Amino acid sequence: MKLATLKDGSRDGRLVVVSRDLTQYQLVPKISATMQHALDNWDLVSPPLQSVYDILNSGEAIDAKPFDQHAFHSPLPRAYQWADGSAYINHVELVRKARNAEVPASFYTDPLMYQGGSDSFIGPNDPIYALTEEWGIDLEAEVAVITGDVAMGVTTADAAAAIRLVMLVNDVSLRNLIPNELAKGFGFFQSKAASAFAPVAVTPDELGQHWQDSKLHLPLLVALNGQPFGKPDAGEDMTFNFAQLVAHAAATRELAAGTIIGSGTVSNKQGNLHGSSIANGGVGYCCLAEVRMYETIETGKPQTAYLQFGDRVRIEMLDASGASIFGAIDQSVVNYSEKVQ
Amino acid sequence: MKLATLKDGSRDGRLVVVSRDLTQYQLVPKISATMQHALDNWDLVSPPLQSVYDILNSGEAIDAKPFDQHAFHSPLPRAYQWADGSAYINHVELVRKARNAEVPASFYTDPLMYQGGSDSFIGPNDPIYALTEEWGIDLEAEVAVITGDVAMGVTTADAAAAIRLVMLVNDVSLRNLIPNELAKGFGFFQSKAASAFAPVAVTPDELGQHWQDSKLHLPLLVALNGQPFGKPDAGEDMTFNFAQLVAHAAATRELAAGTIIGSGTVSNKQGNLHGSSIANGGVGYCCLAEVRMYETIETGKPQTAYLQFGDRVRIEMLDASGASIFGAIDQSVVNYSEKVQ
Repeated sequence: MKLATLKDGSRDGRLVVVSRDLTQYQLVPKISATMQHALDNWDLVSPPLQSVYDILNSGEAIDAKPFDQHAFHSPLPRAYQWADGSAYINHVELVRKARNAEVPASFYTDPLMYQGGSDSFIGPNDPIYALTEEWGIDLEAEVAVITGDVAMGVTTADAAAAIRLVMLVNDVSLRNLIPNELAKGFGFFQSKAASAFAPVAVTPDELGQHWQDSKLHLPLLVALNGQPFGKPDAGEDMTFNFAQLVAHAAATRELAAGTIIGSGTVSNKQGNLHGSSIANGGVGYCCLAEVRMYETIETGKPQTAYLQFGDRVRIEMLDASGASIFGAIDQSVVNYSEKVQ
Repeated sequence: MKLATLKDGSRDGRLVVVSRDLTQYQLVPKISATMQHALDNWDLVSPPLQSVYDILNSGEAIDAKPFDQHAFHSPLPRAYQWADGSAYINHVELVRKARNAEVPASFYTDPLMYQGGSDSFIGPNDPIYALTEEWGIDLEAEVAVITGDVAMGVTTADAAAAIRLVMLVNDVSLRNLIPNELAKGFGFFQSKAASAFAPVAVTPDELGQHWQDSKLHLPLLVALNGQPFGKPDAGEDMTFNFAQLVAHAAATRELAAGTIIGSGTVSNKQGNLHGSSIANGGVGYCCLAEVRMYETIETGKPQTAYLQFGDRVRIEMLDASGASIFGAIDQSVVNYSEKVQ
């Protein structure tokens, strides 16, 4: 089924069920008020939510409303946990190659993962705010899952079964702040801004044959200012699948329902700078840093600028028939001074 | 005023007001159901909560109940954000000295801070669970604050005004996992277990003269297995105060109400291993790592073991009259295999 969170002026919004074709939605106040409540009580509420979904898809719902994704929050407008992996090792290999460093052997067996801020996500169509372009604002298009409760030391099989919902995310990064932050040794902290999620979260069964081995096997479509920028397959070159990422997160602690685990920037292996862009027949990129790394490797320095105020980022995924699965992240970069306080 | 969260079988518990002397509490369902709700709506709910507090302290409350701290959660049983600083540079200096490394000059002007997991905190009297003692389980006794909503790029003056509540925390660390995690460059992730907070959160005004310059000027009392282990003054040798820590956290993003910011392990400057222990007239330590660093510096290697299953940690703070301000964190280390699933 497909779920989303309608904006209503509150911090958590209202849970709705969305039709498969993203044309209609229905409020479900008698089943569950919020997405977090549904995740907290999943075994109890998912069967009635599924019933609403089935009726909505049959066209028989009597109080369905037209779905306009601009009225929606990220599925969890705020979450109790957001931990992001870096499962596409090609991305890490390029980072290292650009600075003539080796990838440690352990990176192929032990996932990279950082704890992110989750107190207030950006809506899928809301601005990415920053105080200055000098921060080196970058998108990172990723896939993410939401888990139920997970035990400490969970097996990958049990971790796979704990995946409740799948989402798309733009993990906004402040690239020019990363070197100093990582040098301090405590993680990305100031170099990660608030993330945005596509409006519709979907259960794994909804993805059918495209959800295999805890990976989502479809191209992730990224556009910058209306031009195609990336279309790598999220199921390819993913060194660690979501079951492994969830198990990694739970190795030394329990995870509570509503924990979001991200894949890291989706990245497919490609030959070189010239062939990797979509214009030249490649699958393109899910972040600006990646094309800058190709440029650094081949020309000695990056040429492509990070995001500027006014730039527009769109992230989406289509099913085999060309229909949007999650709705789109579609947002502009805006100077925080313009935000009405 | 003093607030706490009564366990009721739910994930968020029920908000209560606690009397100043920690002898009585009162439920406040008509004002606010949960601690997070109170923080989300602070301007609206804090005046009536204060009225309840005043009546409770006057002895005139008609439905007050006896306060037994074992019935209480951490004030926020789960939070949308937990970011922990390392504001007592003495601790960092000892870490570096123990491995013959210099403290970078920037550490005295730019706070260290990591993003921690906040999806499920441990109750103040609940076990610290671990799968093995080999992880090197350590306590870290700290002070923490909860903020209201904070704007991106906030001034330290506005950050100070955004501090809603003050707490004590045991930031449980898995010391033997830290080197590998930090070497990966993405922060502590697997090397931080769930944290526990003392049961009572208090407003800064409640601390009177002991809350000065956004620091809490009182000894933080730590006992291990019933023996005094630490009593450093949390107001001394704090290189960055809480206003600075909040401003640091908000430098590149907004903070939402309910954000918890920690001080890092409290640590006072002392001469050497011999003189630093409480038995020898020192103020002792707020984590086992610190005494192990003194041992490493002076004897070449650590002698003191990390926590073992069955070990008991108590963290508390007393006012000038010897009364407990926050209640106590008092918990044992238990093998996770013994937890009833």
